[in-house]
Amino acid sequence: MSHNIQGTKANITDVSDTPVMDPGTVSKETKATSGALKKSSRYRSRSLSASSTDSFSSASYTGSSSEEDESSPREKSQKNSSGFLDFCVRNINQHAFGRREIEIAEHEMPGIMALRKRACEDKPLKNAKIVGCTHINAQTAVLIETLVELGATVRWAACNIYSTQNEVAAALAEAGYAVFAWRGETEEDFWWCIDKCVNAENWQPNMILDDGGDATHLMLKKYPAMFKMVRGIVEESVTGVHRLYQLSKSAKLSVPAMNVNDSVTKTKFDNLYSCRESIIDSLKRSTDIMFGGKQVVICGYGEVGKGCCQALKGLGCIVYITEIDPICALQASMDGFRVVKLNEVIRNVDIVITATGNKNVVVREHMDKMKSGCIVCNMGHSNTEIDVNSLRTPDLTWEKVRSQVDHIVWPDGKRIILLAEGRLVNLSCSSVPSFVVSITSATQALALIELFNAPAGRYKSDVYLLPKKMDEYVASLHLPTFDAHLTELTDEQAKYMGLNKAGPFKPNYYRY
Amino acid sequence: MSHNIQGTKANITDVSDTPVMDPGTVSKETKATSGALKKSSRYRSRSLSASSTDSFSSASYTGSSSEEDESSPREKSQKNSSGFLDFCVRNINQHAFGRREIEIAEHEMPGIMALRKRACEDKPLKNAKIVGCTHINAQTAVLIETLVELGATVRWAACNIYSTQNEVAAALAEAGYAVFAWRGETEEDFWWCIDKCVNAENWQPNMILDDGGDATHLMLKKYPAMFKMVRGIVEESVTGVHRLYQLSKSAKLSVPAMNVNDSVTKTKFDNLYSCRESIIDSLKRSTDIMFGGKQVVICGYGEVGKGCCQALKGLGCIVYITEIDPICALQASMDGFRVVKLNEVIRNVDIVITATGNKNVVVREHMDKMKSGCIVCNMGHSNTEIDVNSLRTPDLTWEKVRSQVDHIVWPDGKRIILLAEGRLVNLSCSSVPSFVVSITSATQALALIELFNAPAGRYKSDVYLLPKKMDEYVASLHLPTFDAHLTELTDEQAKYMGLNKAGPFKPNYYRY
Amino acid sequence: MSHNIQGTKANITDVSDTPVMDPGTVSKETKATSGALKKSSRYRSRSLSASSTDSFSSASYTGSSSEEDESSPREKSQKNSSGFLDFCVRNINQHAFGRREIEIAEHEMPGIMALRKRACEDKPLKNAKIVGCTHINAQTAVLIETLVELGATVRWAACNIYSTQNEVAAALAEAGYAVFAWRGETEEDFWWCIDKCVNAENWQPNMILDDGGDATHLMLKKYPAMFKMVRGIVEESVTGVHRLYQLSKSAKLSVPAMNVNDSVTKTKFDNLYSCRESIIDSLKRSTDIMFGGKQVVICGYGEVGKGCCQALKGLGCIVYITEIDPICALQASMDGFRVVKLNEVIRNVDIVITATGNKNVVVREHMDKMKSGCIVCNMGHSNTEIDVNSLRTPDLTWEKVRSQVDHIVWPDGKRIILLAEGRLVNLSCSSVPSFVVSITSATQALALIELFNAPAGRYKSDVYLLPKKMDEYVASLHLPTFDAHLTELTDEQAKYMGLNKAGPFKPNYYRY
Amino acid sequence: MSHNIQGTKANITDVSDTPVMDPGTVSKETKATSGALKKSSRYRSRSLSASSTDSFSSASYTGSSSEEDESSPREKSQKNSSGFLDFCVRNINQHAFGRREIEIAEHEMPGIMALRKRACEDKPLKNAKIVGCTHINAQTAVLIETLVELGATVRWAACNIYSTQNEVAAALAEAGYAVFAWRGETEEDFWWCIDKCVNAENWQPNMILDDGGDATHLMLKKYPAMFKMVRGIVEESVTGVHRLYQLSKSAKLSVPAMNVNDSVTKTKFDNLYSCRESIIDSLKRSTDIMFGGKQVVICGYGEVGKGCCQALKGLGCIVYITEIDPICALQASMDGFRVVKLNEVIRNVDIVITATGNKNVVVREHMDKMKSGCIVCNMGHSNTEIDVNSLRTPDLTWEKVRSQVDHIVWPDGKRIILLAEGRLVNLSCSSVPSFVVSITSATQALALIELFNAPAGRYKSDVYLLPKKMDEYVASLHLPTFDAHLTELTDEQAKYMGLNKAGPFKPNYYRY
Repeated sequence: MSHNIQGTKANITDVSDTPVMDPGTVSKETKATSGALKKSSRYRSRSLSASSTDSFSSASYTGSSSEEDESSPREKSQKNSSGFLDFCVRNINQHAFGRREIEIAEHEMPGIMALRKRACEDKPLKNAKIVGCTHINAQTAVLIETLVELGATVRWAACNIYSTQNEVAAALAEAGYAVFAWRGETEEDFWWCIDKCVNAENWQPNMILDDGGDATHLMLKKYPAMFKMVRGIVEESVTGVHRLYQLSKSAKLSVPAMNVNDSVTKTKFDNLYSCRESIIDSLKRSTDIMFGGKQVVICGYGEVGKGCCQALKGLGCIVYITEIDPICALQASMDGFRVVKLNEVIRNVDIVITATGNKNVVVREHMDKMKSGCIVCNMGHSNTEIDVNSLRTPDLTWEKVRSQVDHIVWPDGKRIILLAEGRLVNLSCSSVPSFVVSITSATQALALIELFNAPAGRYKSDVYLLPKKMDEYVASLHLPTFDAHLTELTDEQAKYMGLNKAGPFKPNYYRY
Repeated sequence: MSHNIQGTKANITDVSDTPVMDPGTVSKETKATSGALKKSSRYRSRSLSASSTDSFSSASYTGSSSEEDESSPREKSQKNSSGFLDFCVRNINQHAFGRREIEIAEHEMPGIMALRKRACEDKPLKNAKIVGCTHINAQTAVLIETLVELGATVRWAACNIYSTQNEVAAALAEAGYAVFAWRGETEEDFWWCIDKCVNAENWQPNMILDDGGDATHLMLKKYPAMFKMVRGIVEESVTGVHRLYQLSKSAKLSVPAMNVNDSVTKTKFDNLYSCRESIIDSLKRSTDIMFGGKQVVICGYGEVGKGCCQALKGLGCIVYITEIDPICALQASMDGFRVVKLNEVIRNVDIVITATGNKNVVVREHMDKMKSGCIVCNMGHSNTEIDVNSLRTPDLTWEKVRSQVDHIVWPDGKRIILLAEGRLVNLSCSSVPSFVVSITSATQALALIELFNAPAGRYKSDVYLLPKKMDEYVASLHLPTFDAHLTELTDEQAKYMGLNKAGPFKPNYYRY
Repeated sequence: MSHNIQGTKANITDVSDTPVMDPGTVSKETKATSGALKKSSRYRSRSLSASSTDSFSSASYTGSSSEEDESSPREKSQKNSSGFLDFCVRNINQHAFGRREIEIAEHEMPGIMALRKRACEDKPLKNAKIVGCTHINAQTAVLIETLVELGATVRWAACNIYSTQNEVAAALAEAGYAVFAWRGETEEDFWWCIDKCVNAENWQPNMILDDGGDATHLMLKKYPAMFKMVRGIVEESVTGVHRLYQLSKSAKLSVPAMNVNDSVTKTKFDNLYSCRESIIDSLKRSTDIMFGGKQVVICGYGEVGKGCCQALKGLGCIVYITEIDPICALQASMDGFRVVKLNEVIRNVDIVITATGNKNVVVREHMDKMKSGCIVCNMGHSNTEIDVNSLRTPDLTWEKVRSQVDHIVWPDGKRIILLAEGRLVNLSCSSVPSFVVSITSATQALALIELFNAPAGRYKSDVYLLPKKMDEYVASLHLPTFDAHLTELTDEQAKYMGLNKAGPFKPNYYRY
Repeated sequence: MSHNIQGTKANITDVSDTPVMDPGTVSKETKATSGALKKSSRYRSRSLSASSTDSFSSASYTGSSSEEDESSPREKSQKNSSGFLDFCVRNINQHAFGRREIEIAEHEMPGIMALRKRACEDKPLKNAKIVGCTHINAQTAVLIETLVELGATVRWAACNIYSTQNEVAAALAEAGYAVFAWRGETEEDFWWCIDKCVNAENWQPNMILDDGGDATHLMLKKYPAMFKMVRGIVEESVTGVHRLYQLSKSAKLSVPAMNVNDSVTKTKFDNLYSCRESIIDSLKRSTDIMFGGKQVVICGYGEVGKGCCQALKGLGCIVYITEIDPICALQASMDGFRVVKLNEVIRNVDIVITATGNKNVVVREHMDKMKSGCIVCNMGHSNTEIDVNSLRTPDLTWEKVRSQVDHIVWPDGKRIILLAEGRLVNLSCSSVPSFVVSITSATQALALIELFNAPAGRYKSDVYLLPKKMDEYVASLHLPTFDAHLTELTDEQAKYMGLNKAGPFKPNYYRY
């Protein structure tokens, strides 16, 4: 089943070039863009996305990259101020700075902090032993420390060789957590770190929190006995979820797994609400363009496209839509946008944005027709939507005018402005607000709690969506940020509606 | 399963007082509001809603009600200009006027007309014998004549004793269709008409198109053998769908039925898009209020609430939301609306709108606190949301200031303005655009085609949702109205996405 | 100097066909549309607009027209319940109903009522003797009674032979005011009524409140000595203001006059805010059209055009603009609208709206190109913008489908939908909210107070705009409706800005 | 007369701390914030604003500051590739890079380039000898080269000691223009540069293009005879305009001057349209905040406030307004914003934005009440609106978390987030789009043309606003960017309206 459909956005933390639909073609597809790089395409893509992700993030002013020394952390012997040794980070001495970053993030992540506060007495994760494998930055540190507050023991590795904030990793080590991660791992380092989390003395993990599926994969292959003892897996990326469904299909999944990628709250925030802001931010930071009066075509009117349209219309753009799905096309019409084929408007528009989840949506033929100064960028999936390779021909000149901005110059002097070389512009030229991460983290934490505490038999060895009631709970954790006050059903009303007063409030097919 | 949840709107053609959730309490619930009326509550509610529906509709300028004579159509002997006798309408001589109404409606219903044009050669309903029981007005006449063009034979009755446009019924009779309907039927007339459609010489119906379930019910009870020969039922109302699910549960449903009430396209148009316009229209026509700067509280942020909010915000209102569901509440927050408990704002707001699908959402205690001049109306479900009965106390004076507008005057002179006595204000004080009806009609026609032509075994004796591909087809029929041009997937793209180029384009759980 | 420019809307109470710019051509211009009517064009146009104005107004449900008897009020002898005789209305016995209408209007006119309350002790109009000549309806009754509360004595006639609400006139007479007005006056009646207000025993008026300039004109011509004793004239219509400027230019104006038509607050409400709502209302009430996805071209991007655009965009229309002024065109672009020539879009649009103040903006050539079903209406000036006469040719058929809605049918069956025969659709198919009238009334009252109390020498015999401070005061009177709380300057801030803490707060050239 | 009123924004290029209203208090006011700095406050403020202006501008990636050597340009002997010597810049060898910057700016400044193209044959500035004193960056280079193309000879200095883009100055010198400017001038350098422009061999300037009034001032004081020969001064800053009005008042202005600061087109772009985008950009770049659902209070509902509101509402913020002017307050209400006193909402809001033009609008008392995490910034005038000094008390801790972002920490741990230390956040944390500069430049060029070519007697020794026709011309130059097509009046229409077909189209008091 496809999770990666026209008009839905890939997970914001999905930065892989791997085409999800057709695993058989992975290497072929990615080789096309990987050029001379020897690393496997999965890690190459990671590195690209990692640098992208960090380039403008609020944490990026720490300038941590410049202070990195050359020696491998694996060769160093470090201990924290309590004498704790079971970790491997770039430099334990950076912990104070990392701690401050974590504290700032705590302020910006009200939902996960509320969960920590509400549940810290119950300790719903008491005796949970979690192997975590995610990006490691201030926001995930807040998640990790929350899981520990709720009773869990954790061991943690990075899911990406470039995305680790070293200071944050140091702060976690200083706090006594078994963290194995640094920015700039080699591929070998990468698997070594995960292995250190899975396989340790006196350690039988019973839960996995994964982002991309690598910890799951390693444990399944290398420690199958250990894997069978696991009570549940929580996975949040498109790619990882896809791998789980593959496992399930081929009957190799011996534990219940929860797909938190498709929960309502997370999806709306990752796509609609987040992109509504990041499209503006990405274009502005990279090009300083004035939006008023600009003609924009957006390919795809799914959640991402809808978010982009709403923002751009609000700032005075004239927006056109392309769509393959008549229902979404009708929605675009009713929302006040002309639905066109790309060729109808390509000569006139000032900005082209892809948000389809598909490949080769904007191709050389289109770019040949664009007017000079046209901006082209991708808000959709991976780096497949714009056929960037078609621009690497001898007749065209590439001028890098600043980070993430290339001018492609035609022989007649026409130049189009390509952002982030066609990768996700919202990750490359903007930043993900902590509030969005808070939603995701709370979803992950609740999924762990649910799987860990579920009575025997509730979940089989399959892939599940987060129960609607938990989805509602994640939402409710974030309402106080907005000083929003829920109404409670009266007994009479609950009976009339046939609802439990505590929810869930909607049938599963409800569309929100 | 509930179809009538907080935040979703009841079908716009559902005008029944019948509470959907709890069939056991029907009579009790409705008696509460029906007062001294002797008619069964179902028909009483129909009559209320019927008069409401018509009061401002585009067809209402015909003034047909005034010209009605007193004699029952059943006592008259009429024939059309071809000598055809198999019908019963108020006055066959009104047919020319009705024909003009139908022609105007054809212009405003592009989707159903496109379907007629595209499919009239294939005759996909050849040999279909349809019993129809719906409102009878110009728009349904377009549907009826489309079904005939597609090959069907039909017999048609009204689903409501007050909603028939007599001229249109006359035009249908003149065109040679077996129509049995007039405005102002008695309850006995009502069942007599349906019976005439079900039971006729040389007539074994094989399809039912129902709105409320009465034709289905009558055939099942009175002609069980005939019922078993039916190939499919298409039902579009909340109430009728509910009755079908009840039949299915109790294993009394011996034929496949299609619930078109919950198809994507229909739902969005009935709720979000239609209400976005009708809330403005209803308030303006009945009160001439100026929207700019007004404070409004909307109870419920489902599709209906979302539509209302969007329109009112666009005209400069300050909108507050009440919600029971934290997910919808979070959406409201992100969309820029304060989420409050009703009591927090009830003293300050200028307009109160209910859109919950629930009962007693606005009660006397709230109304006691409203400021003078506050307008109260219901966009949600039936007439249950505002506790209107609580206003019928000796201390309060009701002043009818015009049709559908009552001033309720408190002893201190405070007056609140109650619209449509708490019934659906969009039906009572506005009109349903033909375009919305076109969506519904096309959905009904396609459901009939699907059930009639489905290979044996595709559908069992159960209630089905319209296949997504047909939903998409309905949408595509309406795109030319907006001069909207769909993009087609390339072979390469379709393969990459794992999609058929003709759709369906989304998984079933997609939220749009 | 022109007051009637591209992009500004004529006063909403200006219902004259008289072209303002070029008084020499009045009769010629209007004859073109007046056809065989023998009445002077000014009164013919009045009658048209009067019936238009009333057709949907909140007061129109009184059905007063049907109960009118045939005898002239001038032949009847009536007295009120106190024995007062100095009035002439249709039927004094209708006073109770009229009083209720006035009471309802009082609730909807917060600004003028606040003024009444604040100033009733000061009696700033003590000794003022006012001749009033305006429309007579519930809202003007509120103004009249306010003036009396502030100390004035008044005598009042109608400025329009068709617009008087007889019940309201009766209520005023019952309250003891010298009112001379009824619906359906002859032209002779019209002047007789005004004369009765100007020339009475023991009556030397010292103020005139005029709407159209007729009272001014009559007194100047017929009672020049009396005219010289007047201390000031307040005029609110485009036409009346134009006549005053003409008088001033030709040195015939011997008293100060105040042009309240161009005050900031009034202009914004008459044009931008009022039209933002009435365009929606007018189109919906007359055609039941669904706005979502419709393509609309609006001719003129002045205040009226801006208001229309904002509303239609908010409901999902795709809006195009035509403009002659590059500044307004640039504004339209920055606000997100394509600026086009009419011919570029005329074949594709669903709705054409004129808002230019100019003539022949939409001509036959355009209408020949429109697609079938296109709606054409005028929000701008008088009835000149659409060349309706060009449609009165033998090849075209007019079908009146309901009040204010004509279908013009081309030989090939194409039909365009013309609203209000090209007259102001907001007056013909919508109603003016009381709140807008409250702004205007308060402006008039303050202008009277200012002129009546101004020290000698402040005003010469010329036409003045309302002082900005008074404009601000009118605004402040209406803020409590919105529960809006003004901030006061500190002494330090006032000094820093060089402002008086009580205002005025802006230089005269400020654009708002 | 005040140019600096509540709700209007100071010129975007006005970066002075100088309070405009009360020249007598300049030093006192500025000393208050200047702390220990020894430089005169005027130049201190310049330096602050200069660094601000550049920090995020599209040109800022050049990193020119780091490559600056220590020796003074005045001590170096440089010549361009043609042997030209009459200039003084940091390093003539940087010219190629500067030329590329200019070429990019040309693409983004369609209006001024169109003017260059249209007028280059006419040479309307033939024989004009212009002393220019403005910021020197790529955009002004486009203006300078346009003036030369139109026939002028120029000598140019910087109006700010920190804002010069050295590469651009080098490119201008390489092109043969007498440029005297570099980043990091001393105060003495500053005046030396201006003097070099004013006083040169064989050079009697006849026009001045000034930004702040320093060139005007120097020439008037030091070369009064030369000053008398000048035909006109064009001034674009609030400060410079204020100084001109002062000169005029005291009868020291012996030449006509044009205030281009208050022309319609420039004002709308500097304020409404530009701020609508820069408020979003400034907040996002500096804080990565998510806007959806945030409560914001904006002090002042002038053009700047209106722009901010529109953008923030569009992204889902809940916006409150404070106002002193009842007319603007009523506009805010009608536009859908609650008008409150700051204290009513200060405890609940997430963002506070000042846009009043006044001083001490947000004071310590307010900041004491804000909740932790509240963001405070200024979009209004200078650095006076937020009383930043009141935060420099021993009980509060300042933490600089990144460039332009300070956390002010209260003893209880509460932290508010202060942007740009209260200076203009749109200049400090965002950038001015080239399109806005294009409007300003075209306005300046046209003002020069008008004054230089005006027949004797048209302008006296006074300060004038740009004629409306020229304002319209500036707008028309920018329409092709939007592919906007103007409609032309027919002869008949022009006559009816009393307008010239070429404009001007509006009376002077028209409000747009």
